[in-house]
Amino acid sequence: MGDEISLAISTVIFALRPDPDGGSPTLWIPLVRRIREPFLGRWALPGGPLLADESLSGAAARNLKTTTGLEPRYLEQLYAFGEPDRSPGARVVSIVYWALVHAGEADRVAEGDNVRWFIADEVPDLAFDHSTIVEYALWRLRTKMEHSRIAHALLGDTFTLAQLREVHEAVLRTKLDPANFRRQIEASGSVVATDQVLTGGRHRPPRLYRYNDAVSLVDSSPLDDAASSPSLS
Amino acid sequence: MGDEISLAISTVIFALRPDPDGGSPTLWIPLVRRIREPFLGRWALPGGPLLADESLSGAAARNLKTTTGLEPRYLEQLYAFGEPDRSPGARVVSIVYWALVHAGEADRVAEGDNVRWFIADEVPDLAFDHSTIVEYALWRLRTKMEHSRIAHALLGDTFTLAQLREVHEAVLRTKLDPANFRRQIEASGSVVATDQVLTGGRHRPPRLYRYNDAVSLVDSSPLDDAASSPSLS
Repeated sequence: MGDEISLAISTVIFALRPDPDGGSPTLWIPLVRRIREPFLGRWALPGGPLLADESLSGAAARNLKTTTGLEPRYLEQLYAFGEPDRSPGARVVSIVYWALVHAGEADRVAEGDNVRWFIADEVPDLAFDHSTIVEYALWRLRTKMEHSRIAHALLGDTFTLAQLREVHEAVLRTKLDPANFRRQIEASGSVVATDQVLTGGRHRPPRLYRYNDAVSLVDSSPLDDAASSPSLS
Repeated sequence: MGDEISLAISTVIFALRPDPDGGSPTLWIPLVRRIREPFLGRWALPGGPLLADESLSGAAARNLKTTTGLEPRYLEQLYAFGEPDRSPGARVVSIVYWALVHAGEADRVAEGDNVRWFIADEVPDLAFDHSTIVEYALWRLRTKMEHSRIAHALLGDTFTLAQLREVHEAVLRTKLDPANFRRQIEASGSVVATDQVLTGGRHRPPRLYRYNDAVSLVDSSPLDDAASSPSLS
C-alpha cells in the first residue's frame, strides 16, 4: 500500500513577540528558507522526514530542533495534508504539528538568511501548501482553542490579567475593554489568583494568576499519558 | 524521505441504533474482520491504502464504500496514528477519518461473517491499535463536538426535542431530565423551531426543530470549500 507516497512532518510554532511598529504583543511564526527544489529559495514551515523508529511527534520535535533550535515543551498534532498536487513531481503527505512557545523560548531561534520569524498574519507566499496550513492553524487557534490553554502556553506559569488580555488581543487581533475582560475571565474559572504579585517596585503591583489545573484535567485525551502536558485544543 | 513507511486510511463510523436489550438509542460502529495477516480473523476499522491520485478524504470514502457499502455525506479527519510498533513487521502510519451517519444510512451495511455492527463502548480487542483509536474517537465525540453538530449528523434535518435528548443520552451514556434539557437547548440557540410537527396521528404532535445554520457558519474551517457540509468538530 502507499507505493511512491512519502511522508513528511512539519510544524507551526506560534510565539508572542512585539510588533515592530507599536511594540504590542503579536503572533509570530518561524519559517525556514528552502535550500533545494522544489520551491528553492521560498519560505516554508520547519519540517523533514519521519525516520523508521520515531513516533510522529518525535519526528516533529527532531525536525524542529534541527531546523530552528526550538524545543517546545509539547507539540500537538494539527492536521494531515495530502492533496495529490501539493508537491510538484512527488506525492508527499505532510502530518503537521503545532505548538505555542513563550517569548523566552522564541529567542532561542538563531535568525539568519535561512531562518526567520514572520508575523503570522503577514507571511509571504510559502512553498507547497504551507500558506494554507498557516491559515488553518490561525483559524484553529482563534476558534477552537480554550482561552486558558492559550494563556498557559504563551505566558508561562503565572501572569497578570493585563498580560492575559494582551495575549487575547494578539490572538484575536482586536482591542478588548479591560474591565469587561476581567469580569469575563473571573467568571469563567479558567484562571485562579495566586498570592503573588508582579514585582518591579510599583506602588500597587498587580496580582499574578495561574492556569486552573482542575479545568484542564477534564479535557485530557486518552492518548495523553499521565506525564504529558495538557493538550492544546 | 519516509523509506519503507507506508500509509493507510481508516475510518470510524458512528450511528445510533437500538440497544439489543432495552431498545434505547445507542452508539454503534461497523467493523471489518481481517482476512489476512497480521491479526488474521480479528476485527478492525474499515480502511485500506491511499492511491496515487486520491485526496486523503477521497481514499477514506473509497475504502469505506468498498469494505462496508457506507457512503457518508461527509467524512472528517480525526487523527494520524503512527507509533513505530503499531503494525507487526511493517511501519504503517494510519490517517483516521470519522463520520456520524443516520440510522437509515447505517442499515445499508450488509452484515455478514466479515462485516458487523458493534456497540461502540463494547468492541472486542481489535487489530493493530484500533481499540485505542475507537477510544479516542469516543472521547472526541463526548468532549469536543458541539451538540448541534451531533444532532444534525445523527438525526437528519429535522427532529423533535425528545429525539435530540435521546441522541445526547446515547452519546453521553446517561439519562437527562427532559425539562432541564429543553431549557438548556433553547437557551443555547443551537437549534431553531420549524413550523412543522412530527406526524403520526397523536393528539398533540411534537414540534420539529432544525439545526441552526447561523451558528454553524461561524465555525467553518478555511479548508472547507463553499459546497461542503459543516465539519464535525
